[in-house]
Formats: sequence, structure tokens, C-alpha cells
Amino acid sequence: MRHAIGIDIGATNTRIALGNDEGELIEVVTFKTWDYQDPNLYLEKIAYAIRELRAKYKVEVAGVGVGSPGPLDMARGEVVAAPNMPFKKLEVVRVLKELVNLPVAFANDAVTAAVGEKFWGEGAGLDNLVYVTISTGIGGGVYVDGSLLLGKDGNAHEIGHVVVDSQERLTCGCGKKGHWEAYCSGSGIPKFARFIAEHEKVEGSRLMTGGKLEARDVFEAYRVGDPLARRVISEVKRFNAYGFAAIVNYYDPELVTVGGSVALNNPDILLEGLRDSVKNYTVNRPPEIKLTRLGANAGLLGALALGLGLERKVPLR
Amino acid sequence: MRHAIGIDIGATNTRIALGNDEGELIEVVTFKTWDYQDPNLYLEKIAYAIRELRAKYKVEVAGVGVGSPGPLDMARGEVVAAPNMPFKKLEVVRVLKELVNLPVAFANDAVTAAVGEKFWGEGAGLDNLVYVTISTGIGGGVYVDGSLLLGKDGNAHEIGHVVVDSQERLTCGCGKKGHWEAYCSGSGIPKFARFIAEHEKVEGSRLMTGGKLEARDVFEAYRVGDPLARRVISEVKRFNAYGFAAIVNYYDPELVTVGGSVALNNPDILLEGLRDSVKNYTVNRPPEIKLTRLGANAGLLGALALGLGLERKVPLR
Repeated sequence: MRHAIGIDIGATNTRIALGNDEGELIEVVTFKTWDYQDPNLYLEKIAYAIRELRAKYKVEVAGVGVGSPGPLDMARGEVVAAPNMPFKKLEVVRVLKELVNLPVAFANDAVTAAVGEKFWGEGAGLDNLVYVTISTGIGGGVYVDGSLLLGKDGNAHEIGHVVVDSQERLTCGCGKKGHWEAYCSGSGIPKFARFIAEHEKVEGSRLMTGGKLEARDVFEAYRVGDPLARRVISEVKRFNAYGFAAIVNYYDPELVTVGGSVALNNPDILLEGLRDSVKNYTVNRPPEIKLTRLGANAGLLGALALGLGLERKVPLR
Repeated sequence: MRHAIGIDIGATNTRIALGNDEGELIEVVTFKTWDYQDPNLYLEKIAYAIRELRAKYKVEVAGVGVGSPGPLDMARGEVVAAPNMPFKKLEVVRVLKELVNLPVAFANDAVTAAVGEKFWGEGAGLDNLVYVTISTGIGGGVYVDGSLLLGKDGNAHEIGHVVVDSQERLTCGCGKKGHWEAYCSGSGIPKFARFIAEHEKVEGSRLMTGGKLEARDVFEAYRVGDPLARRVISEVKRFNAYGFAAIVNYYDPELVTVGGSVALNNPDILLEGLRDSVKNYTVNRPPEIKLTRLGANAGLLGALALGLGLERKVPLR
């Protein structure tokens, strides 16, 4: 049996796992990303956790796989300017290789999650698979004809930045207008609710859009029948249909799995009726669309697969 | 030097070429597709032209490549239900193989044109390339990481069917609403002009939207400053920016080439400012976007490449 280390760099938590080639996570170490303001101290903390895991389990480790929020410089193996992280630049591959003396493979977190789905999730044995994460942003990872898509800069999966609103009412975190992510992500839903509260007359709502509104407040209000929340979620579901339809038309997948905290916490609302509404906007034969079975571990399992050198398009180096 | 036959099946003309492995079209035979109402007589006419070319040039022929408007059944090698053709079903691969006793390779016409661009156009040496055709419909062919995208049913390129209008004003030829093709293709532009004429107050236009309006009439009126045509083309250009931005976000190409009669006849209007407006809607580094140098021959040259067995994802069989 072969072993490797998988690392899931998150804006909130960083998770480091020792796992094996059956997709088993033997032990997972978690710490708060924001406890480390200095990028090199942060990477040293990761290296320390890896050394502890190796000392404890005394197994040979094939390599280290890392998934991180972008934007990345894939060629240099760096996080370039992640918007929600304590440091601007993180030289993942160069520094980690030095610290732990193991080969490192590195990819975008949504791509890493797609790798997890492909090797140890519902995608096993499928050649055409898209993983969609709906969390703070909307991202994806894509397999077509058995091959992970990268593109000229490693970004052939920026699904969250398709225009879904031709009225261009909201501006995305990326600075551009009308993008799916600006309306339907964890950061977008509260902004969309606030916009609708200001610009449409929706009577009888108790949703407080003035203060620190979060996506979960909108979903909670939806569950108790709040009219503003109903209106917002109905529009979110329509734009989700456009977004998933674009995925179906552009990649022609057999299966689309959905993860990310917003989807994982509200599958009854967001996945209900989705496949039928996607059909209204596609020419291609619709794929299955379902919640990932891997839950919040899709990315960590994908990082493990990268650490084992299983994905030839994201090699250990 | 190796030779092959390329066939470009079009809703108007069918073109059959003998060419060589330097991308040279030695002779092209053209006839009207609609002269043949019977699918087998149509394929016999093609076979006859192939026999004549072989008799005349006395060269060995490696195979026959065919590009056709979809929808196709790639596995069976058939045109299934092309909307603008005189016959419903066309058993291209099985019947042609029998008639000419040569291996046949078969693909969607926009995919075939992308193959032409990749082997003998601007895409030579590039791994990430999208060919976009704007003609009666809007279609595409896509290379990512050096590999032609097919997807579960061979349709990982239905770029014309992305939703660009969240008001869903027009219905596409495919029956679904809000699609790029419904507004910006040769068949869509007149419908869009008629819609705007009916629903917006545009003063002083001389464009006759009541009768048999064609896309070329709208472009002609635009060129002489007609206010309705100006309004329509301005909206067409905005939706084109959304469509090309989706291509950039989903496939991350180095180069996008544009062909098809509507684009080839109006590049000064449709490509003017396009790359800059695409930048307003993408996160990925924008690619070059330019008119194909292959003109109306992109598909025929791609079919020749298929006939030579150059594209491993669309093999001779």
C-alpha cells in the first residue's frame, strides 16, 4: 500500500492529511489559516505537521499534493494573490519541497476537488465529469474525454465568471459585471438580496438587509417562507440553471457533482428541480447533477490523489 | 506526399476536395445539396465525384474526411436530424465506406473547421484554440491542452447555446430561450431586429422589418447609419462579448479564430472592439481573437486533415 500527504489550503482552515492509495484519510490535522500572517511561518507549520505524521505512522510517503484557492501561477507553483488569505504570495512548491524533501503537486482547490471526485468519488470510471463548488465563490474542475482541462494558464474552468444577468446589476469579486458568482455564491447571495430589497417592492419581509447579512440568513428566511428570501432564492435558482446549462453545453459531461459549503448546507433548496430547469436551457443530453458524496473532503482527497501522483496533468515535481 | 478526400456538407452547397498533406486543395467539386432529396442518391453523387477525382489524378487516397451540420450520432457515423437539410437522416460513414471502399472519418462541421485551423491555419503549434463560426447558427470547435474536446456525446462545444439574455426575449432554433445564437447568428439577427422594432421606440429607421428581413439587410442599414440597425448591432456586439467571454472563461484558449459567413462578411463591424469588450467580462488572461485566414475553406481543410487521419480523436474507420 502506498501513502501520501494531502493538503487543503482554505481561507478559514488548513487541513493536512496522511492517506493511502485506497482513498483512506488516516489522520487529518487542522489549524486556522489566519493564525499565520507570515507565508514562510505558515509553510513551516505545514511542514512540521507533515513531519509529525510521518514520525507517528512510520510509512513511506510518495509525495505531497496541495490544493489552494487561486489565482495561482501553476508554472511557478505559487499562490499569487488569493483575495481571502492572510498573505499575498505563497511559494508553495519551492518552499515545501525544501522543508519536507518530498515531491509536491499543486493545483487550484476546485480542480483538486474534481480530482478527488474522479479518483474516489462518484466520478470513478467516468471520462466526462465536472465538479462545481458553491461556497464563498463559484468554481469548478473539469474532465473531458478522461483528461483534466487546464488551458493556456491552467484556468479552463472559470465557470463562476459566466455572465448570467444581461442587466449587469451586480459586480463580481473579480471586478466584472453580471457574473454567476456575483449573484449565487456565499458572498453573492447577500448582495443580491440587498439589491432586490432596494430595487423591488417586496412586501412583508422580515429579512434585515441593512446589517451584516449572510447567505445562511437568506436560506433561513426562505425556509420560513419570507417573501423577500423567496424572491431572491427563486432568482438564484434561475441563474444557477443558466450556469449549469453553460457547463452542460460547453463540456458535455456525464455527471456534475456539487460541493462547497453553500450547496452542502442547502441541497434541498439548491438542487431541487435543478436538473429539470437546466434542461430548459441546453441542447446537449442532460447529465446527472447531484451533491458530492465526499462532502467537505473532496478537496483533501483530491490533494491526496495528487500526492500519490495519480493525475498526470498535475504531476509531482 | 499523401493524399485524401475532404467533404464539406453544407445546408446550401456540398464541396468535395482532393488534397494533400501540405494542406493544398488540388481540386474542389461543388454541387447544390438541395438537388438531392434522397439521402442515398446524395451519397452516390458524392461517391461519383470521389471516383472522378481519383481517376483524374491517379494518386493513392488515404481516406475520406467529412464535416457536416449536426446533430450527429458520432458513434453510428450519421447525421441524425439536421434542421436545414433536404433529408432527415444521412448514414454518412456506413454508406460512403461501401460506395468508395475507403476509410471514413466524420465530425460536426464546426469541429471540422477547428481541425482545419489547428493543422493548416493560425492554430498550428498551439495547444489551446477555439474556432467559432457565426453563420446561420453559432457553433464551435475546441482544443484544450492539445486535445480536441468531444465529451460524452461528442458535443463539448455547443457554445451558441449559452444564455446571454436573462430577459429570455427570443427563442432559439433549438427551442430554448435566451441563447446567444437566437440573437447574434445569421438567423437570429433579423429576429432580434424585428423584436426591437416592435418593443422599443427607435425613431427614424428605414429598415423594413415586416417582410423577408435578412442579417445582411441589418448590416447594410448599419453601414449607412440607420438608427434601428445601430441599436440592434450594438446589442449583438454586447451579447457577442458575453459569448466570447464564456469561451475564454471555460476553455482558457491562447487563440480564438472566427469564421462563418456572417463574420466573414462583416469582420469590420463584429470584430471591431471585441477583444476589449470581452476583457470586461472575463477573469482569464484574454486570448487573441481574429478572423480565420482560411475563409470559407476552414471546414473543407479540416475534412482533408480528417481524411489523412491526422486527428486522433476523430479517427478513420
